[in-house]
Amino acid sequence: MTLEGKMLIGQETVQGQRDAIHAINPATNEALEPAYHGGTRENVAHACELAWAAFDRYRDTTLEARASFLETIADEIEALGDALIERAVIESGLPQARIQGERGRTCNQLQLFAKTVRAGEWLDVRIDPAMPERQPLPRADLRQRHVALGPVAVFGASNFPLAFSVAGGDTASALAAGCPVIVKAHSAHPGTSELVGRAIQSAVRRCDLPEGVFSLIFGSGREVGQALVANPCIKAAGFTGSRSGGLALWHVAQSRPEPIPFYAEMSSINPVFALPAALEARGATMGEAFVGSLNMGAGQFCTNPGLVIAIKGPALDQFIDAARQSVEASPAQTMLTPGIHEAYESGVQGFINSDKAREVARGQQDRGPNQCRTGLFVTSAADFIGDEALQAEIFGSTSLVVECNDVTELHRVAEHLEGQLTATLQMDEADLETARALLPVLERKAGRILVNGWPTGVEVCEAMVHGGPFPATSDARTTSVGTAAIKRFLRPVCYQDLPDALLPEALRENNPLTLRRLMDGQREL
Amino acid sequence: MTLEGKMLIGQETVQGQRDAIHAINPATNEALEPAYHGGTRENVAHACELAWAAFDRYRDTTLEARASFLETIADEIEALGDALIERAVIESGLPQARIQGERGRTCNQLQLFAKTVRAGEWLDVRIDPAMPERQPLPRADLRQRHVALGPVAVFGASNFPLAFSVAGGDTASALAAGCPVIVKAHSAHPGTSELVGRAIQSAVRRCDLPEGVFSLIFGSGREVGQALVANPCIKAAGFTGSRSGGLALWHVAQSRPEPIPFYAEMSSINPVFALPAALEARGATMGEAFVGSLNMGAGQFCTNPGLVIAIKGPALDQFIDAARQSVEASPAQTMLTPGIHEAYESGVQGFINSDKAREVARGQQDRGPNQCRTGLFVTSAADFIGDEALQAEIFGSTSLVVECNDVTELHRVAEHLEGQLTATLQMDEADLETARALLPVLERKAGRILVNGWPTGVEVCEAMVHGGPFPATSDARTTSVGTAAIKRFLRPVCYQDLPDALLPEALRENNPLTLRRLMDGQREL
Repeated sequence: MTLEGKMLIGQETVQGQRDAIHAINPATNEALEPAYHGGTRENVAHACELAWAAFDRYRDTTLEARASFLETIADEIEALGDALIERAVIESGLPQARIQGERGRTCNQLQLFAKTVRAGEWLDVRIDPAMPERQPLPRADLRQRHVALGPVAVFGASNFPLAFSVAGGDTASALAAGCPVIVKAHSAHPGTSELVGRAIQSAVRRCDLPEGVFSLIFGSGREVGQALVANPCIKAAGFTGSRSGGLALWHVAQSRPEPIPFYAEMSSINPVFALPAALEARGATMGEAFVGSLNMGAGQFCTNPGLVIAIKGPALDQFIDAARQSVEASPAQTMLTPGIHEAYESGVQGFINSDKAREVARGQQDRGPNQCRTGLFVTSAADFIGDEALQAEIFGSTSLVVECNDVTELHRVAEHLEGQLTATLQMDEADLETARALLPVLERKAGRILVNGWPTGVEVCEAMVHGGPFPATSDARTTSVGTAAIKRFLRPVCYQDLPDALLPEALRENNPLTLRRLMDGQREL
Repeated sequence: MTLEGKMLIGQETVQGQRDAIHAINPATNEALEPAYHGGTRENVAHACELAWAAFDRYRDTTLEARASFLETIADEIEALGDALIERAVIESGLPQARIQGERGRTCNQLQLFAKTVRAGEWLDVRIDPAMPERQPLPRADLRQRHVALGPVAVFGASNFPLAFSVAGGDTASALAAGCPVIVKAHSAHPGTSELVGRAIQSAVRRCDLPEGVFSLIFGSGREVGQALVANPCIKAAGFTGSRSGGLALWHVAQSRPEPIPFYAEMSSINPVFALPAALEARGATMGEAFVGSLNMGAGQFCTNPGLVIAIKGPALDQFIDAARQSVEASPAQTMLTPGIHEAYESGVQGFINSDKAREVARGQQDRGPNQCRTGLFVTSAADFIGDEALQAEIFGSTSLVVECNDVTELHRVAEHLEGQLTATLQMDEADLETARALLPVLERKAGRILVNGWPTGVEVCEAMVHGGPFPATSDARTTSVGTAAIKRFLRPVCYQDLPDALLPEALRENNPLTLRRLMDGQREL
């Protein structure tokens, strides 16, 4: 499949009129063809009109038809074959095996949402039958289901060119909910975006759905993104990226005449609490495993462990020493884009220049463009609490160890943290009471709490929460990974005394979809 | 019980330092004793600190203890006896029978949430057990439950001094979710608020809960409300009132360093579509029933039918004529406050002055202060679509009939509507296809759709949705009435590989709470 360098608006391919975007191979700094010219406000408006026109028909598809559409997208992505892998590798600088794994994850995610759509629990059907004889007043027949919010804008992330991008979690969950999707492609991987976009476009055609169910728009500045979020046809948006970028678009969403839900997944430093007994028993192996997690994907994960909190003493020294050795042995890794590499360098430089942080180790020298050297720094609890800059996310493989005087101070550091995607406890049997006392704090701070694991690696499943209090996300009530993500794009509607012939299938008296409905306060089936 | 005129902060009674608030008996314009002096920022801060201090302990109460607390509040409200009824009647101008009914509804609501808490479905427990042998990567043990957001600010509404006020739906659902509550009392019924507040305060004591679980603060200006929403200890807020008041506080919530969910239920004109066959068959009885709904509670319901949309012709004329007669026979009714009465008069005057609306009928002359005369006006579809002012809510018993030329124009009016709490279809068998074609539009516009009923009267049950797209509410993803309201104050947390001893009860291996958990994608039990 030859890349055309064009936008996909409904079933059309459209040539952009704004500045050209070229992907950069970060391993060589070479600009890749073709050029992707950015879209205009008019392109955005046209995609939004098509999405709006498609909305009522798409949200009214049967559960089977919608599930089958998601599966067809997965098939079409698989059918792209090696062309997709090759393009994603040169656009992202990520290893081939990683991209292959990510393609599997992306397709599994679409298939899992297909299963969720078919099961229909997300409809949350509740029926309170009429009670015509009730005194003093009769009760009407009341039936609730969930319906799709409307067309959704999705902003692809740089760090998962497949799983958090054009056909990623936000797109899959919005389509599963019955919402048409317009993706603003991330400028770091436009070719990958075009390929996946054409897979979705083809699935729309094969499934005989209205063309406005999916569009893909490019744009290098703010014009496209802001126009998209501001368009009255758009009823929700999903974003994964930086805190500043997320907040800027969030403000657009909140300043509309009709504000809309804006799900931004932004910044998290993912504290790891190394508790005393665990540190004593296995400080050295823990230090090594920690650097393994820190280096994964060149540290470019939302759940990268950017902070270790522990009580100072010989056991922590052992941990730090093992980590130091691992860091020093860490080869430099190519980062996703020159911009991300530059931001990483400047973040690390901030630690180097800070009189509050002490450098423990740096990884091996870089041997090519855009390579990051792993970094490990140490600070005291008092300095950490006193200096906000030490709590800012450095996107990449650098982490900070916070040394506390005692458990009380460790609690104080925990309470001082901003909202996080994850919080991890490294603990042994003897740490149980310390862990129990910390748990309520961590529950308030994070969306996912781990014991004796590392936060990198986010399972796509029913129980996952990839979310958390601000600024980890803009809306802690939801998750952006896992089947519960479908709830972000739904709202409840109640039907009072509708004749059976007018009711949506999910609510009909004879339960044609065989759902486990809440019937008069009791579960059916 | 003698009214003290003081705020309730935790278990203390606190004298306010700001301007005095006196309730006004709207039937006489007489100021009622005692004076309620408003709180300061310091009072708000103190209540917030207590709420924060209570939060971890309160949210960790057992389902049984929390349910029992809600039931104790209901008992304590019942125990206030006639003193509560008498005070609410003179503060609101509402008839005694209505206030008695509302007390029943308020207590039933607390008891229903107690049942919901015990059932535990709101925990939405999902468990994906570990798969240590999985290739290429093992799966960790992942368990999700929902936890309380944090202390909640509640703004009492004027029009339901019991059911949407101090111990109303917002308070009941927030307490059910495990959130401490701070209520800003509505200045129209401070005595009623004090009585109910003392009932809750006493229930906190009887149930041996931390005192910060509940506080009640008075304030006449913006100081208290804004300080409350801006306080970092507050993690969500519920509001029922005007569009301008709701939006002002919503902006405070969104401008915080950490924005929070702000659930404002604001404005709705609740369109009624009188379809041709129904109008033909029973236009006259429909006109009469419509005015019955319009006059309920002097029209001071969020779901008051402020708009009738129909195709013009003899059948609609019959409807209008019957409605005219009913309106002309309608006695004037005392409104809740002088301010609400004034706003009503000014809204009606806007219709009278408009060259787009024609007056059909007014109710009987008022015979006392603050009485509203029912009003009925007619406009054309073209004028309605062209003039935003005709779509603004007039809080009170005035409604507007929109005459359409044909079904196409009726659709156009439907599409032109803002978000609504309700939309009603008056229809007969022969209207089925017209109704079917309208339904998708109504689903996009409203939280509840009724057939052949009237929107006033909101059942507190599992299936109710009292919510809807902006500006009906600030967040269409939720309801403020019914058991699903508990979801507003929750967020998911995922626990990865926690030892059973550290897991919350709901997630433990042996399922001690006997919940229907989603276990590896299948429902338990």
